[in-house]
Order: sequence, then structure tokens, then C-alpha cells
Amino acid sequence: MEVIDGNEIAAQIISELKVEVNSFSQERPTVLFIRVGEDPASVSYVRKKQNTAKKIGITSQLLVLPDSITQEDLLDAISKANADQEIHGILVQAPLPAHIDERKVFNHVNPTKDVDGFNATNLGKLCQEMEEGFTSCTPAGILEILKRKKIVTEGKHVVVLGRSLIVGKPAGMLLLRKGLPGNSTVTFCHSRTPDLAKFTQKADIIIVAIGKPQFLTADMVSTGTTIIDVGINRLADSAKKSGFRLVGDVDYDKVAPLCSAITPVPGGVGPMTVAMLMSNTVKAFKLSLETSYS
Amino acid sequence: MEVIDGNEIAAQIISELKVEVNSFSQERPTVLFIRVGEDPASVSYVRKKQNTAKKIGITSQLLVLPDSITQEDLLDAISKANADQEIHGILVQAPLPAHIDERKVFNHVNPTKDVDGFNATNLGKLCQEMEEGFTSCTPAGILEILKRKKIVTEGKHVVVLGRSLIVGKPAGMLLLRKGLPGNSTVTFCHSRTPDLAKFTQKADIIIVAIGKPQFLTADMVSTGTTIIDVGINRLADSAKKSGFRLVGDVDYDKVAPLCSAITPVPGGVGPMTVAMLMSNTVKAFKLSLETSYS
Repeated sequence: MEVIDGNEIAAQIISELKVEVNSFSQERPTVLFIRVGEDPASVSYVRKKQNTAKKIGITSQLLVLPDSITQEDLLDAISKANADQEIHGILVQAPLPAHIDERKVFNHVNPTKDVDGFNATNLGKLCQEMEEGFTSCTPAGILEILKRKKIVTEGKHVVVLGRSLIVGKPAGMLLLRKGLPGNSTVTFCHSRTPDLAKFTQKADIIIVAIGKPQFLTADMVSTGTTIIDVGINRLADSAKKSGFRLVGDVDYDKVAPLCSAITPVPGGVGPMTVAMLMSNTVKAFKLSLETSYS
Repeated sequence: MEVIDGNEIAAQIISELKVEVNSFSQERPTVLFIRVGEDPASVSYVRKKQNTAKKIGITSQLLVLPDSITQEDLLDAISKANADQEIHGILVQAPLPAHIDERKVFNHVNPTKDVDGFNATNLGKLCQEMEEGFTSCTPAGILEILKRKKIVTEGKHVVVLGRSLIVGKPAGMLLLRKGLPGNSTVTFCHSRTPDLAKFTQKADIIIVAIGKPQFLTADMVSTGTTIIDVGINRLADSAKKSGFRLVGDVDYDKVAPLCSAITPVPGGVGPMTVAMLMSNTVKAFKLSLETSYS
């Protein structure tokens, strides 16, 4: 059984990006983070992204807006960033306050600056298998793990647990693509799937993205499966200074021994998401120099 | 076993649309068909669509371009139609000549006039479950069949054979949606799936869209399955005046007796595709009167 070290792969990507960014003649890629409100997890995620950007030589800007902001004012702020030629990538940190329609916000980001890949046009390009589009970062990170760990996907049965716009759907669509990693048979399961185990027991690769701590248990998994655990859940733990520990959607201790490979939480998919965001930012920068996106 | 009469359901939709179009105060919905070259099947499809439009009271225009046209000139023709306020819907008849990238052509149609639903933005909105987008006509027709025939999709296992942009992917994505018809567990199979029968035998609903005559055979199907056959293939038949007969992707005579319901070819999904195109055209017209698409 191999525990996939997401930190190591992410560090590799970050170092490759650093070399690439340093090779740019003068201008540096610039990404704008828009954070609405002071949700501690969002504050922490954005800070982590800014730190990684800095390491690579990507300039980042931060726009903090009050969580009382109207949807219209938020869209206006995005319009300004869309028009600003010095900003190459825009990321609006989710989740947004309940009174705002996230999809409308994501769709308002200019598709050529959509480093998060949540814009409808980029989701559609992913379905169209058009390389020029931006792939959302967590699914892109999953593909990169499979690719760099040389995990065979061709002809394999991938079972995706979760049908979110941000992970489940795009991850499955990517593995369905003609090409590699891809060419998988893909099953999407979710909360309305009766007898989930019937599907997970038959899978070669399981991608779990449902946000329920330790949901995937050993009885649901066959020997030799590869598991990608996208969940990041807090479990109360009095032994920790913070009062909690992070666990994934997989009952790791019991499931891991059955697997041929598994991503741990933390240190699996999480760092890959940040790395792929940086990769998308560099792509957006290069795109701003050409006009291939149509 | 029920043979689903696509002609009857399509006629119902067309008659509903006729009533709606007649209720519009003055202006009538207008759709522009762009046909490149003289491929006999394309000529016939476009003529059928024009006839149906006429029945409903939808105005149609036809622009025929030579199959030697460059991609750039075709995109220019689309740009003109995009800008023409008297045209509410645009359909570029596929397939296009090999020297033209179909996806670039589809993506050039203004998303608000994209009655074919092949534009990346509309594909993405389908993934986002945003009702305002245009759903490509064949998948929309499949959903309408399931809805009007009250075929249960919630919690059912749908197996889609084929991963095309035009049928397989959007049909599966629609059945994955939260809501009805939808909430299905969806498996996408294709040419790289080993042992297809392993999946089709476990399905509650099979959607076959691979373009191989009589491919799905009785040994691949369990009793009680619902089958939607999207294939339209010509088989040589000297008994016919035309020299051929149309068959689907299903070995109908042997498979149908096993099914709880099945769509025949012809007369199943085919007429639904045309009806949903008309429905999309009326939607585009209404959209031109408001500004809800964003």
C-alpha cells in the first residue's frame, strides 16, 4: 500500500512553476483574491494561497469585502478586476454568504481570468475537452496525482462519490476524457444512491468528495483499490491544542491497509489544490500575452 | 413492454408550442439555420426542422455556405447572425467539413441564441444546474420522454453508452441533477470500457448513443430495463425502395421483449430532438425580451 504524499508532489509542481515564472522577461503573473467576510477557514485558505504565490514569484493582491455586501456590488468589484489589465487571475474565495448566488459570481469572472475554473464557460470547455480552458483546481490536482504516480486510468472503473460543481462533476468528466489520464468508465454516486457499497466495492479508483467524516468504511472497499480522499473535516479531539483534528471522508486507519494507494488527510489532495491554482495563474498570465482563448 | 411513441410525445410538445407562439403579441420567434455543403442527411434534417418550425409559427431562415468555406468565414457569418436582433436562435447543422473545428464554431454562437445547446457556456450551465441555459436537443428530448412517461429516475442506475459532447455527456449530466427527472446514479461507458455487459446488465435505464447498428444485444440486458436508443444507422435492405432501412444502436427485435419500456428507431428519440429544438427557439425568443441570462 502506498500513501500518496500530496505535499511532495505539490512541492515539485511549485518548484517547476518557480523556474517558469523566473524565466518570464519582466512582468510577473498577478492574481487577485477576493474574500467576502472573515470566516476563519477562508482567511486561512487565502493566506496559504498568498504565501505559495509569493514563493513562486506570483504577485497577489487581496480585496476584502464585508459579508453584508450585495450581490450587485460584488459583481461590480469583479467587473473592475475583469477590466484591469494588470490582473491576470481572479479568485473569489468560496463559500460566499447565503444571500449571494455563487454560480452567478463564478460566471461573472472573465473566463480568461478564471483561475478557479468555476465559470460555466470553463466547465463547458472541460466537457468539450478543450485544453485552452481552466480546470478547477481540486479536480486538476487529482489528475496530476494520478499522472505523476503513474496510476493506470485507461479502462478502469472510477467511482466518484459526490456530484458537486467544484469537485465531483469535473473530476469525473476529466477521467472520462479521451486521452490520459482518462479513458475511464466513470460512475457518479451521491446522497440519492441506494446501496453505495454495491458501486464502491466494484471500483478500481474511488474519489470521495462528500464532506462526511470517515464515511467510506472498510466494508465498502475491495482489496487493491486506489482511493483519493477529498474531504477535509474537523473532528473534536481534546488531545490537540486546537481542540480538533482534520480527517477525510475515508475511515483511513481501517481502509488504507486494503488499498493499493491512498491519499491521506491532511497532506493528500489539499496541497495539490493550491499548487494547481498557481499553475492556472501562470496559464492565465501566458494567455494574457496571446489570444488563443475563444 | 411499452414501446415509447416519440412521434406522439413530440406532436404534443409541438402543439403546446404552437399555442404559446400564437399567444405572442406581434413578433414571431426567428431561427437561422446555417448549413455548410450539400450532405444529403444534413439537407434532409434541416428541411425537417424548417417544416416543423413553420407548423408552429416560428419563422426560419436558411443560410447555405459552400463546404470549401474557411473556418474564419464561417465564424464571420455567425458573428453577423449574433448581432442581428431579428434572429433569436442560431443552429449550425453538424457535421461540419473536416477542416473546421466544430467546437470553435459552436462556441462562437452567442450563448443566448444557442438553440442547439452545444456552446461551452451552455454546457457549463447544464453542469451548474442553471435553468437559464440551453440544453442540447437530444438529451433534452430524452429527459422529456422520461418525464412524460413518468419513468422513475430517482435512485435508479442509468448507464450511458457513449461520451459524445452532443448526447452522452449532457444526457448523463442531466440525469445526475438534483431534482426530477434526475437524482440517478450515472455510469458513463464507451469504447475503452472493457466488459460493457457487466455494466449494462446492472442498469435500470440504458441510454445508447454510440452509432453502431444493433450493438446492444439481448445478452447485455436484464429483464425490466428501460432503454433509450439514440442511434440512427442505415442498414442495406434490398426490400426497401431506398435500398436501406434505419436501425438504432439496439438489436431491437431481440432486446425489446426484455424491456419494461424502449424507444424504437425510427419514431423514438429522433422526433423529440426536433421538438426540443423548437422549444429552445421559443425560449431564446422569450429571452430576447428579457435579460435574465447572465
